[in-house]
Amino acid sequence: MNNLEALFNPDSVAIIGASPDAKKIGGRPLSYLQRYGFDGKIYPINPKYKEINGLTCYPDILQVPASVDVAIIALPSQVVIETFQKCAQHGVKSVVIFSAGFGEIGESGKREQDEITRIAKEYNVRVLGPNCLGLFNVEKGFYGTFSTIIEDEKPLKSSIGFVSQSGAFGSHVFTLARQQNIGFSHFIATGNEADIDVADCIEFLAKDPNTNVIACYIEGVQDGEKLANAFQLARNHQKPVIALKVGRTEVGMKAAMSHTGSIVGSDKVFDTIFKQNGVFRANTIDEFLDVTYAASQLPAMQGNRVAVFTISGGVGILLADQLAGQQFKLPETPPVVKERLKAILPIAGTQNPIDMTAQISYLPTLLEDFMEAVLSSGEYDASIIFLGFGGLKHDSIKDRIATLQKMRDRYPHIPQVAVTINSPQSSQAFSEAGVVVLQDPTRAVTALKAMKQFEVFKKAPATQAFQKQYLDTTNMDTVLTEYGTKKFLQQFDLPITNERLAKTEQEAIQYATEIGYPLVLKGMSPQILHKTDEGLVSLNIQSEEQVIAEFTRLKKVIDETAEAVFEGVLIQEMLKGEYAELFVGATKDPIFGQMVIVGMGGIYIEVLQDISMRKAPVSPTEAKEMVLELKASKILQAYRGMPAKDIEELSQVIAKFSELIFNLEDDLLESDLNPIMVFGEGQGVKIVDGLMTFKKQNELITN
Amino acid sequence: MNNLEALFNPDSVAIIGASPDAKKIGGRPLSYLQRYGFDGKIYPINPKYKEINGLTCYPDILQVPASVDVAIIALPSQVVIETFQKCAQHGVKSVVIFSAGFGEIGESGKREQDEITRIAKEYNVRVLGPNCLGLFNVEKGFYGTFSTIIEDEKPLKSSIGFVSQSGAFGSHVFTLARQQNIGFSHFIATGNEADIDVADCIEFLAKDPNTNVIACYIEGVQDGEKLANAFQLARNHQKPVIALKVGRTEVGMKAAMSHTGSIVGSDKVFDTIFKQNGVFRANTIDEFLDVTYAASQLPAMQGNRVAVFTISGGVGILLADQLAGQQFKLPETPPVVKERLKAILPIAGTQNPIDMTAQISYLPTLLEDFMEAVLSSGEYDASIIFLGFGGLKHDSIKDRIATLQKMRDRYPHIPQVAVTINSPQSSQAFSEAGVVVLQDPTRAVTALKAMKQFEVFKKAPATQAFQKQYLDTTNMDTVLTEYGTKKFLQQFDLPITNERLAKTEQEAIQYATEIGYPLVLKGMSPQILHKTDEGLVSLNIQSEEQVIAEFTRLKKVIDETAEAVFEGVLIQEMLKGEYAELFVGATKDPIFGQMVIVGMGGIYIEVLQDISMRKAPVSPTEAKEMVLELKASKILQAYRGMPAKDIEELSQVIAKFSELIFNLEDDLLESDLNPIMVFGEGQGVKIVDGLMTFKKQNELITN
Repeated sequence: MNNLEALFNPDSVAIIGASPDAKKIGGRPLSYLQRYGFDGKIYPINPKYKEINGLTCYPDILQVPASVDVAIIALPSQVVIETFQKCAQHGVKSVVIFSAGFGEIGESGKREQDEITRIAKEYNVRVLGPNCLGLFNVEKGFYGTFSTIIEDEKPLKSSIGFVSQSGAFGSHVFTLARQQNIGFSHFIATGNEADIDVADCIEFLAKDPNTNVIACYIEGVQDGEKLANAFQLARNHQKPVIALKVGRTEVGMKAAMSHTGSIVGSDKVFDTIFKQNGVFRANTIDEFLDVTYAASQLPAMQGNRVAVFTISGGVGILLADQLAGQQFKLPETPPVVKERLKAILPIAGTQNPIDMTAQISYLPTLLEDFMEAVLSSGEYDASIIFLGFGGLKHDSIKDRIATLQKMRDRYPHIPQVAVTINSPQSSQAFSEAGVVVLQDPTRAVTALKAMKQFEVFKKAPATQAFQKQYLDTTNMDTVLTEYGTKKFLQQFDLPITNERLAKTEQEAIQYATEIGYPLVLKGMSPQILHKTDEGLVSLNIQSEEQVIAEFTRLKKVIDETAEAVFEGVLIQEMLKGEYAELFVGATKDPIFGQMVIVGMGGIYIEVLQDISMRKAPVSPTEAKEMVLELKASKILQAYRGMPAKDIEELSQVIAKFSELIFNLEDDLLESDLNPIMVFGEGQGVKIVDGLMTFKKQNELITN
Repeated sequence: MNNLEALFNPDSVAIIGASPDAKKIGGRPLSYLQRYGFDGKIYPINPKYKEINGLTCYPDILQVPASVDVAIIALPSQVVIETFQKCAQHGVKSVVIFSAGFGEIGESGKREQDEITRIAKEYNVRVLGPNCLGLFNVEKGFYGTFSTIIEDEKPLKSSIGFVSQSGAFGSHVFTLARQQNIGFSHFIATGNEADIDVADCIEFLAKDPNTNVIACYIEGVQDGEKLANAFQLARNHQKPVIALKVGRTEVGMKAAMSHTGSIVGSDKVFDTIFKQNGVFRANTIDEFLDVTYAASQLPAMQGNRVAVFTISGGVGILLADQLAGQQFKLPETPPVVKERLKAILPIAGTQNPIDMTAQISYLPTLLEDFMEAVLSSGEYDASIIFLGFGGLKHDSIKDRIATLQKMRDRYPHIPQVAVTINSPQSSQAFSEAGVVVLQDPTRAVTALKAMKQFEVFKKAPATQAFQKQYLDTTNMDTVLTEYGTKKFLQQFDLPITNERLAKTEQEAIQYATEIGYPLVLKGMSPQILHKTDEGLVSLNIQSEEQVIAEFTRLKKVIDETAEAVFEGVLIQEMLKGEYAELFVGATKDPIFGQMVIVGMGGIYIEVLQDISMRKAPVSPTEAKEMVLELKASKILQAYRGMPAKDIEELSQVIAKFSELIFNLEDDLLESDLNPIMVFGEGQGVKIVDGLMTFKKQNELITN
């Protein structure tokens, strides 16, 4: 058992600051452990008592004559470090620090908290907190928390592991769940995260045999890589992860590309990380709980065909609208099934959504007969059953639940969600029967949408392992011009326009002849990056005379610009034919590192914010997904007489570029390939313009 | 009292098919009327009884010796028409027909229903139904329904008038509302709408003194104009309308413009009608009820500055995110207020959202002190108070409610929404105190969003009355070429390119000289509408030789196309300068009539579906709103060194065009001005190409 496991699943618990008063912070965990059946050792510690609730009480952790898996510190902040030090000396494996007054109160508290972190590392003790509500493990009967949420009754057990960066938020969700008869395997509030963070907890839950679904509430993370790895571990263990992430990182995207900085909000980076790792991001607390609950109860969804059974035609249409909006199919009821339904109830609406009408109240077997007829057809992958306010009808709800149980058992591979207004009693009856019930039709649709997303992700090819090969850029210029950028990209087999850099008029004439007219001439200077704005781009050059004239003009512009160094004039082929313009870029997120971005070229990328993003690197398959995700991607497909564009080659280029920026790590500040011309299928792509900037040498050295 | 008012607010009710059994369809309304204190006359009618529940029972409506405001028909469908006929003969003012078996069962039922409609018109009797659940008026104590939703308790009263096209849906919402202690003024289920439709009911509720908010559930309407007028009436009475509309009209947009047919889903037309009339469209049942409830309880929102009070920092951030997403502002707490808060609770988060922390449980006056300090600053227009699971704490919830009541009374102009998990008891306590409470933070944001929308709409200039002047198109061609379309538009002062139609080479040369080079030449034939596809457009014509050559070529193309008639060659100025391309069109919705559409030109309109739509006519102000609503409208503003475009003139043109299509009524099948070039500010716009098609003459005659 490692020390993290000792925390989550302990056999011995010391409570430092223990109290016989179950209303006190040091009294609650003791009371919970005793009342809710913890069968390990409990060591109350408080110099004021010899004994508490029948247990020997020790004056000091150092006096405890046995090994301790978890020590809970429920003391004023002033004595926390001293006490923690003693725990470390004793060999305690893990510590939960309830006490507030650390990182959250400012600089002085932050220093104290850093000391906790230091001691933890030195002694290899794992720490939850400080300033945390603690944790509990329902299966184990371990309650290391002073929260009042479990004061009145023992928590219900389920396969949901829940980690929250906020105690108050966690308590709220716990209580909301309790009201809906939803339990948990583990509840963990991480507080200030001096040591253990949300990623550690996800990692533990990913491996925990009592947990099948992981719910996490996130406000911010320090180590993006660690969080992404924790999500990957959950994926490897086939456990769905549901996240509710609030707040926007303040750090912003200042170091990102000049063109996309205003578009790429950092919340979009989190969105991207969630998507890339198959995490369902909930937008509301209800969604967070509904999806978590559904994922913990329902079988995997094998396809996207939904049967809707309703007692209200109107709600049936509402469900149909919303399901269709989530790309579900509502296949028509097979004719033979329709006949069966008509025979049972001539006034029924037999088209899917299937309207059972108010007759459900008068024909006791109607629901079962209808569901059996429809589901036995094999044409459906999931079902939603809308029962209106049936949940309030105490004479019939037991029968309804029995029917739904029977259907679930007979069709165990078909996820089934009931929707009804519930009383507390019916809610409990549904829960005890293991039948998923929600209060609102829309919420059922969201639950199925999440189930589909989990399944799609599960079936997607696993992320390719990619070996980072750090590229040393110490000897490179900090700013690469278009020419320098493309020379650099070419080394990695990225396709660029046919071009050469002319330092002299003679070279310009020679290269022009070699490349062939028409040409584009561009003045290069690392000090002038917005070439068009400065008149450094000449299009459609047709003759040697024009080459000479433009070479002279471009060189003059640079020579006359203060501090601008003349690198040369780029002699470049002018592209012809049918192509689409795209934009590919790199932006460095302060938390998650290099992100690759794709968008349609032109002003539309900024006006319409139509971009797609992933953490680098991506495989060509993922790159293609990125492209197809663009709203404007239709333009790349065969469309209005225009031939389809070479999306395959574009995807290869994006993938290669993403590997490159990944290998450049933090040294790359920004890169911007804009435009990339995408030709017809099989005709490839060409990078027409580009820019890269790197950290300054001295920055590289100090980092 | 007109006959519609007699239905909603009757003094005398006959129940045909009355029964002493309160479980029977004919027994329920009688039972409800008697139990819930209807103080008008009740006439049970049933040949089987002499007396029911102490009331004289008549064998036949014709025997009732007094005038009858409402007769309820609770009989099998076979005898409904005969019975209805007798009611009409008796002079009954209105009839509610519960019986099913009419329009909903197919052709034969539809014929019977048409007979009901016919008799209703002949005798001027108003009819609700058939196949309807009926209605009730809580203030009046009138219960003309057989619904079981009011079986167990008398409905609660409020200022919410609710009309539903579906009885089952209405019942569900009623029950959901009842569970949240929300009542109604009127509940009306319209059933098959043989006579009275949802628009009639909205109109009644708009004028009803007991109703301040109108909630309507809509599946489809026959008469769009009537519905829009009902919404306008509600607006004139300053009553917010909330709609939940399901389903998509099947009729589709086949008769709409060739280019936009695929874009303009008819649900978007409903969306447009709702928006144009200030109706809040709810997407879910929860939203429908939450917004209705909030609108019935809260004062108008004077601005968009929200103060958030929370016991969980996390939920505070969630609320801040979501409020910001709805364009609310969360102004920073004024420094002097921050000091006051810090003095009360040093650990509080004093920045808005304001974190009161768990200390709310230990400091009894914390909530009041904080709210008073913040709201008295005058910097906020609304407040959300998140109390976590405070609603379950029976020892403290009364105090919280008292505080919120006090704050509401002290700041009556500041809408205030509390959020907490409730028990049935606390929900009732909130309701009795008149304090708006919702279960989820997101739902509070939606409620405020709707309140803001109502206020914005209330303050918007009233829709201009527009006198329709029907334009007779009987003598016009059914298909107008670009030339014909623009000649037609020019009569209404719409700006077109400088152009003339040349029938001969000579004319072509002459007009070319008059207009000046460069020119565009286009071959005109009413049989060839896609000119570019057929090679009928020649751009950049620079000389007389080119004019001659192209005239000959274009004429030849048309002459060689089977059945194509040569109208001439259009000699047109070729526009220069900086302009943006837009698209303006008309599409005829089968329900709501002519709609005007605006979008950015090019392929982006179809790829990105970036269009904006209104029912015609629109004022220049509304037209400008349409333009600014486009995602791509940024392109029309000063942007990236490009000058701002003439949005004012564009808006004038859209408004004029919208009046024109409105006056053309159903005669116009489609029109499509594409592109319209919009020049720099003050430089106007020009319609460059266009198309109009009208109904065939014989169609016009028969219609």
